[in-house]
Amino acid sequence: MSVDTQQAPAGLTDEELATLDAHWRAANYLTVGQIYLLANPLLTEPLRPEHVKPRLLGHWGTSPGLNLVHTHLNRVVRDRGLDAVCVWGPGHGGPAVLANSWLEGSYTETYPDVTRDAAGMARLFRQFSFPGGVPSHVAPETPGSIHEGGELGYSLSHAYGAALDNPGLLVTCVIGDGEAETGPLAASWHSNKFLDPVHDGAVLPVLHLNGYKIANPTVSARIPETELDELLRGYGHDPIHVTGDDPPAVHRAMAAAMDTALDRIAVIQRAAREEGSTDRPRWPVIVLRTPKGWTGPAEVDGVPVEGTWRAHQVPLPAVRDNPEHLRQLEQWMRFYRPGELFDEDGAPRADVLACVPHGHRRLGATPHANGGLLLRELPLPPLERHAVTVDEPGASMHEPTRVLGDMLADVMAATADRRDFRLMGPDETASNRLQAVYTASGKAWQADVLDVDEHLDPHGRVMEILSEHTCQGWLEGYLLTGRHGLFSCYEAFAHIVDSMVNQHIKWLRTTRRLSWRAPVASLNYLLTSHVWRQDHNGFSHQDPGFVDHVLNKSPEVVRVYLPPDANTLLSVADHALRSRDYVNVIVAGKQPCYDWLSMEEAKVHCARGAGVWQWAGTEDGTREPDVVLACAGDVPTQEVLAAAQLLRRHLPDLAVRVVNVVDIARLLPAGEHPHGMSDFEYDGLFTTDRPVIFAYHGYPWLIHRLAYRRTGHPHLHVRGYKEIGTTTTPFDMVVRNDLDRYRLVMDVIDRVPGLAVRAAAVRQRMEDVRQRHQVWIREHGADLPEVADWAWEG
Amino acid sequence: MSVDTQQAPAGLTDEELATLDAHWRAANYLTVGQIYLLANPLLTEPLRPEHVKPRLLGHWGTSPGLNLVHTHLNRVVRDRGLDAVCVWGPGHGGPAVLANSWLEGSYTETYPDVTRDAAGMARLFRQFSFPGGVPSHVAPETPGSIHEGGELGYSLSHAYGAALDNPGLLVTCVIGDGEAETGPLAASWHSNKFLDPVHDGAVLPVLHLNGYKIANPTVSARIPETELDELLRGYGHDPIHVTGDDPPAVHRAMAAAMDTALDRIAVIQRAAREEGSTDRPRWPVIVLRTPKGWTGPAEVDGVPVEGTWRAHQVPLPAVRDNPEHLRQLEQWMRFYRPGELFDEDGAPRADVLACVPHGHRRLGATPHANGGLLLRELPLPPLERHAVTVDEPGASMHEPTRVLGDMLADVMAATADRRDFRLMGPDETASNRLQAVYTASGKAWQADVLDVDEHLDPHGRVMEILSEHTCQGWLEGYLLTGRHGLFSCYEAFAHIVDSMVNQHIKWLRTTRRLSWRAPVASLNYLLTSHVWRQDHNGFSHQDPGFVDHVLNKSPEVVRVYLPPDANTLLSVADHALRSRDYVNVIVAGKQPCYDWLSMEEAKVHCARGAGVWQWAGTEDGTREPDVVLACAGDVPTQEVLAAAQLLRRHLPDLAVRVVNVVDIARLLPAGEHPHGMSDFEYDGLFTTDRPVIFAYHGYPWLIHRLAYRRTGHPHLHVRGYKEIGTTTTPFDMVVRNDLDRYRLVMDVIDRVPGLAVRAAAVRQRMEDVRQRHQVWIREHGADLPEVADWAWEG
Repeated sequence: MSVDTQQAPAGLTDEELATLDAHWRAANYLTVGQIYLLANPLLTEPLRPEHVKPRLLGHWGTSPGLNLVHTHLNRVVRDRGLDAVCVWGPGHGGPAVLANSWLEGSYTETYPDVTRDAAGMARLFRQFSFPGGVPSHVAPETPGSIHEGGELGYSLSHAYGAALDNPGLLVTCVIGDGEAETGPLAASWHSNKFLDPVHDGAVLPVLHLNGYKIANPTVSARIPETELDELLRGYGHDPIHVTGDDPPAVHRAMAAAMDTALDRIAVIQRAAREEGSTDRPRWPVIVLRTPKGWTGPAEVDGVPVEGTWRAHQVPLPAVRDNPEHLRQLEQWMRFYRPGELFDEDGAPRADVLACVPHGHRRLGATPHANGGLLLRELPLPPLERHAVTVDEPGASMHEPTRVLGDMLADVMAATADRRDFRLMGPDETASNRLQAVYTASGKAWQADVLDVDEHLDPHGRVMEILSEHTCQGWLEGYLLTGRHGLFSCYEAFAHIVDSMVNQHIKWLRTTRRLSWRAPVASLNYLLTSHVWRQDHNGFSHQDPGFVDHVLNKSPEVVRVYLPPDANTLLSVADHALRSRDYVNVIVAGKQPCYDWLSMEEAKVHCARGAGVWQWAGTEDGTREPDVVLACAGDVPTQEVLAAAQLLRRHLPDLAVRVVNVVDIARLLPAGEHPHGMSDFEYDGLFTTDRPVIFAYHGYPWLIHRLAYRRTGHPHLHVRGYKEIGTTTTPFDMVVRNDLDRYRLVMDVIDRVPGLAVRAAAVRQRMEDVRQRHQVWIREHGADLPEVADWAWEG
Repeated sequence: MSVDTQQAPAGLTDEELATLDAHWRAANYLTVGQIYLLANPLLTEPLRPEHVKPRLLGHWGTSPGLNLVHTHLNRVVRDRGLDAVCVWGPGHGGPAVLANSWLEGSYTETYPDVTRDAAGMARLFRQFSFPGGVPSHVAPETPGSIHEGGELGYSLSHAYGAALDNPGLLVTCVIGDGEAETGPLAASWHSNKFLDPVHDGAVLPVLHLNGYKIANPTVSARIPETELDELLRGYGHDPIHVTGDDPPAVHRAMAAAMDTALDRIAVIQRAAREEGSTDRPRWPVIVLRTPKGWTGPAEVDGVPVEGTWRAHQVPLPAVRDNPEHLRQLEQWMRFYRPGELFDEDGAPRADVLACVPHGHRRLGATPHANGGLLLRELPLPPLERHAVTVDEPGASMHEPTRVLGDMLADVMAATADRRDFRLMGPDETASNRLQAVYTASGKAWQADVLDVDEHLDPHGRVMEILSEHTCQGWLEGYLLTGRHGLFSCYEAFAHIVDSMVNQHIKWLRTTRRLSWRAPVASLNYLLTSHVWRQDHNGFSHQDPGFVDHVLNKSPEVVRVYLPPDANTLLSVADHALRSRDYVNVIVAGKQPCYDWLSMEEAKVHCARGAGVWQWAGTEDGTREPDVVLACAGDVPTQEVLAAAQLLRRHLPDLAVRVVNVVDIARLLPAGEHPHGMSDFEYDGLFTTDRPVIFAYHGYPWLIHRLAYRRTGHPHLHVRGYKEIGTTTTPFDMVVRNDLDRYRLVMDVIDRVPGLAVRAAAVRQRMEDVRQRHQVWIREHGADLPEVADWAWEG
């Protein structure tokens, strides 16, 4: 134990220690009860096999440590009148957090049927990890939680996200020593270089070394303490150690450590806020070293359990069948002296609750962990302010993301005082051409600055670190605590956060079914620098599969948009930023792109999500078209329009319909996604029997997976990215993947009945032109002017 | 500059310094030439716009640093007679590595048309980032590379993977300060707790601080050096600094740093290998701090470029159009004094090559970076040794992964001396029931050990760290240097490495087309603890989408297997471990599962990849079946067989065919995947017009995406995981997702023409039974014995 006694505040009184210990014992008792018991919650009678659950599920090992942190956090929150949130990294210790919520009363306020008495305790026990009950992790169902913790690695970035722009908030974050081995967690320690002590709250990490994972020791528990200290100091922290297995001693040390940490935080915040200090602070971190499964069975079946990996899940696995296990369980539970903790009705006694804060200060009742309660509408500018003028389609060009950047700059400016909007990106904000935002806010940065630097600002709200994981974690934490944001990322590298977005979608899907959870702002992705324009980087940067990934997930949460130009991007972004409880994926280009739709047209088109571009086709309206050219994405749209133009020139009597799809989920049947089209609408757009040549931005089979139930599906032919990538010219990329205009014309000729013979010469000409392009490109290293400078002729 | 002069070896002579500088200048010259020039490679005439490429692509910023490391690595490799590989983390500096390979001659040996003369230099320049040429990154096409470096984060884990079981190898790893911010990189520093100084080689990280990413300063360059040192020491390293921008001074410091580092490595290895030391060593790390874009244009258009983020890509962007840029480019290139570096024919002069090692010691010629050259066949046991006895289907149960564990233990034992097989897993080897391997090899561990620990072994070849990224990176590095391995992982958390497997698949797809790259062992995944059996953890641990993810990628590389029982798992694993250049994904359960096939039957079935299980159906062979029940995956197979049994009992005259699919890509058309079935074969298995009820392990729409082109597709009805997860009983999970036996029987009744009326009572009964199960489960927290103890009755 090595709390710095020189700075340690006055210690606990014996009475305080007794009440803290009572709270901790109560939480431990309730934790064990949840894992094991179906009945007899207060052990008012001797424990019998039928009191025990048939399937024993849950994780004991981490729980006593979580209970200790919760107990001591209660004390300081109450004593100091703090607003606090806690992120429980070892989220598999769900029963611990549930126990604490039940003790403080927030559980019963959230779920009135789980009363704070013996009947409620029985319900609390029974429902845990039980069919129809509550999950075993710190799930969305858990009051006070913003972090599930099932997939390890994201606790600390979530904590930082919660603290951003919440100057009055203390965010404690328990990090398990297992989680500390993951990449995302390891990277997120550096978040302190981005935390503004003036406008942001404090993050207090508690690195909990219980020494073991599922079956192995942990790295951070098995390196010398001096080495661990170097690591934490290297991360910019100031470690405070609490080590022990004797409860009274650990309580005293933990209380002192919490006080020391909070005093130091207060000093840091005062220096920055009142004394104008601009030094990067060295924030405290508590290193808590206690045995895994502490106070549980020391030995089971002759092997050590407490203090080993064997305490990870259910230390006594055979309680219903093995009388010795049953006896050990009863002994274990009685060790907490339930009679001292709960009254005859099963309610926690006053001593147990002495440390518990009141009202919204309780960790299970803070509105910050139910961020929708605090959410304000984002002040978005009228779309017309940033719209590009489009008198006729294709007469001008813009870089869509640059236009969006102007709009985002407005949002940044309008939230300058409110500070509830952030833009995240892995060092790509300018590369993605959103740099206009810097006019309204610099880039958050607390580390050293040189003269040559631009746009760095200790108070900035643009966040750039070369870690997609950290950006995503920050944004999730920020959104779940009731604010707004957008994550811009190279399209291919969104896959880095595949598993994180999975977990966020699962979270949102669950919270949407919990009436007490208020809706939060959607998680918005702008994927740009996309597969078709990776001229500098080639194959490793070419992957449009993030869309496929998210479309596998809960349809009530997932939305995917492929705006084909600047105004449609504005419309889609506006919609996404206004929406709640979604994950919106927007794929848009940063390269100059023709403007197809006016703002008014864009709004209508995006609201419909898909529609005919009459001006681009050659239908006369008297009959079904001969062929439908469909497109989704900026590059496919350009190729389809170029193909339509070629068809108009070479096969003028062909009735061509051009359909553009912005909202890709519209292709799904109505029953499969809230945006899914009825068959009536789909058939009206795409026909039931005409060939549809669909030029899609990503993997072509995605379109088949969405549309396979449609009547016209046998006539659907999709072109897209076929995993053929390299550093080459933009046009060569589309040719290699058979998405180019000439190929599309050939597809039309091949598929419209009767055209193969009649248009054989046109087809040959297309072949020849394609060939000529490829020869030219290999010779000159650039595209032929006829495609590089191609323009739509209306 | 702070090389520890006390230990620093004797410095460079002036002559040595001159030759090193000449090599470095030559590499820099060739780097600039690749980015800019189409012609006039030796600047024999004044530079004119037409000598310059029309599209300027590439990354200059990191390149002078890479050239410096390569030059100095050459020196020590040559002087000390080392075997070395270098992993170039900032892989976007491709032209630097290509320049070095051309200088040392390995490029010309690999690509004879790029000769080491003026004509070859012109070709080298022209082909770079040019259509039909070579990629801009350190790609598979680059001699000596095992790491593309486009997606940042994996360099150090690749380096460790290369060093494992290569005691004579030095693996230098350049880590950019941008990459250092990523999660995977941050986690992988701790790899030194797993590196055995006896049996493994050395990893020498070179943290290259050039201070900037694309547009931002880097964290590690902007914290005080003392803090960075604490971080690196906390990671277990011993830092050696080289800082400067004056080339001669940096050369001297870098040479001294390399010598110091290699001397320390030699001391460490001697202590462990000869003196029996078991202390965990503190390995050296070099911190190299040089300007970004060093020796490039100091200012362009009036703003600073050298030493800033503006030097990241192409410092002079408008050389063809802007005469001042053209002048600056010529001045820049002539600054390297090409006339001193290359003779009249364009060949490098002797001085330039003085530091270059010979033959296989050259970094571009080492067989370790073309690992297939070193690969030996894995000694696999005969399958019969571990096969489970199956006299009739469903008469016994085994845990498939446990049976596989016995086989893997054999492989571990058989490679005890060769040491060319490793098993990786994020703390899940035992949880995934593969613990038999510990009988043959312990778990690699160099940190502290306690009495209570089990199976830890400083020389172990089972690798467990709670970082999927690190496991994946280690395994990739291990395989690409010519060894074998398997990665076992919870199914849901394979998504954590989605983007890593993308890059590995891209790598393999490219190497397969390079005749000089020898095939390497496949990357084998065992995904277990799967979606249907996450009883302890619930929703966050339920995700079968990794299969969907990999099936989007190059079909020539990707294989996916879903063995339904123990013997099929053995057969599939045996095949995967023998295969080359694939990514094999095996999804298999760890829970007790009926044994369906004998070893002989399993081999035949797996070789076919899909087939009729005649014994399970009720066809009489005289006509097409009335319905096909298809299944893929262990749980779906059990439900389909239970449904078949119900149909046999309740609708005995129905002709039911049961088809099991092991190799999921067989469903694809023959032209879309090498394993794709012909239509003839598909139609023979599934019929063209009978209803097919397909019970699939994962997302049901995957099956549609694979089979949409088949004639019988309109009759295909797929059940699978619909993203409905929680902690509940195994049977409740299948019921909630409509994959249960009763639902499948109802599906049959709904879809076989004429059955709806005739079997209405049976259908109602199924509904009732389903209902009864759900009530029971919610009441008892366990499955009804009739499904928990269900057994196949043949």
